[in-house]
Amino acid sequence: MLRNIKLEIEYDGTDFYGWQVQPELRTVQGEVQDRLQIILKQKVNLIGSGRTDVGVHALRQVANFTTDSRLDKDSILRGLNGLLPDDVVIKKVEEVDLDFNARYSAKSRTYQYRIYLGRTAILRRYVWQVLYSLNVESLVKATQQIIGEHDFSSFCVTESSKGSNICKVSEATWEKSVDELIFIIEANRFLHTMVRSLVGTLIEVGRGYFSVSDFIDIMEAKDRTKAGPTAPACGLYLAEVRY
Amino acid sequence: MLRNIKLEIEYDGTDFYGWQVQPELRTVQGEVQDRLQIILKQKVNLIGSGRTDVGVHALRQVANFTTDSRLDKDSILRGLNGLLPDDVVIKKVEEVDLDFNARYSAKSRTYQYRIYLGRTAILRRYVWQVLYSLNVESLVKATQQIIGEHDFSSFCVTESSKGSNICKVSEATWEKSVDELIFIIEANRFLHTMVRSLVGTLIEVGRGYFSVSDFIDIMEAKDRTKAGPTAPACGLYLAEVRY
Repeated sequence: MLRNIKLEIEYDGTDFYGWQVQPELRTVQGEVQDRLQIILKQKVNLIGSGRTDVGVHALRQVANFTTDSRLDKDSILRGLNGLLPDDVVIKKVEEVDLDFNARYSAKSRTYQYRIYLGRTAILRRYVWQVLYSLNVESLVKATQQIIGEHDFSSFCVTESSKGSNICKVSEATWEKSVDELIFIIEANRFLHTMVRSLVGTLIEVGRGYFSVSDFIDIMEAKDRTKAGPTAPACGLYLAEVRY
Repeated sequence: MLRNIKLEIEYDGTDFYGWQVQPELRTVQGEVQDRLQIILKQKVNLIGSGRTDVGVHALRQVANFTTDSRLDKDSILRGLNGLLPDDVVIKKVEEVDLDFNARYSAKSRTYQYRIYLGRTAILRRYVWQVLYSLNVESLVKATQQIIGEHDFSSFCVTESSKGSNICKVSEATWEKSVDELIFIIEANRFLHTMVRSLVGTLIEVGRGYFSVSDFIDIMEAKDRTKAGPTAPACGLYLAEVRY
């Protein structure tokens, strides 16, 4: 009998060429698929909620696969974690309805982007170290502009395969702690490098290179060349996928 | 004119053979001293508040050196951070009285030990991943026994050079978050591997292998062989030194 198994996966993206399988390269999808094949004794096709780029982390990537193996979910969890390298951890295994698809059933995805204000040795692989001072008020004002349904062409490096660059952003906020600023964004879909392009441009607002009205002009231009630099991958986390 | 310069240093201990200079090995003291020699154009003797072992991290190690260089403190800070590898960061440079000695002037040191409850990919270098369930109540009860002045011979791997194994513990608490337990301990002095031996033994209480009264017996035995295992270095942080 065919079963559909959902995985929640945490990974440190530092030493991966992203999520998606590529020949000869170390990818998260490849590592997990290979270990699944060992414990299930059959090939599986692991469907991720979406790709993450080289160096991007995940707190809770979601993936699913179908199998006729009868191995129970606790054995899959323990088996995978026993075989996987220590930079990928399976946090949860669940059996779900056959029509569940990690990619197409997703209603929204949430990303976090961590900025460290200054230099840090211990967090260096997991944050963007920003050395200039930031005006949080203008950063927040510019960020409010992206909430709602907009064309994000100015924040997308390659053209979307779906033809449209319109995304519906339901949340876009900054959390501030003593040493960090964390950007949290939830949307129905994300374009390629969208979060990193947004953060790179918002930080230009925060440090005064762009004004809030410049930011609005950039959004309206629908032209990536008008926006700021792409923030580094090491600060970005796929945090949650909602179904 | 001789000046005394105090440094506050953060480091990721993962790739270091501890603080103290050793021939042919990569140490924090060695890395910082070498860079100081470059920017001051003279040899310096960097005095740390204390050694940290292989793999142990520091949020705020304190060190000092004397020099007749007239280089201002901002230039020392920027110069060092520009030359140091990314797993050592100078957080602060201050000019202090000539009688300040990072080791002998210290009144207390505070260590943190981070335990992650479960598996984690992203924090794996910075926590001890504990997979069994812990009874926090008995953990806390046992921990209360160590507050005050005690002989910690049962939690010391090598004999103290000072002959006495008595330490005065002013604080010993656990902070709990969703996924973590953090042990915080402040004392006037620490014996070799004391925090890791304490944590390793306390976790044996938390998982029910030792009772709280066993823990008291272990302390009173003054015998390292009675205690639990030494917790791994990757969870330990030198957090603060008070003067």
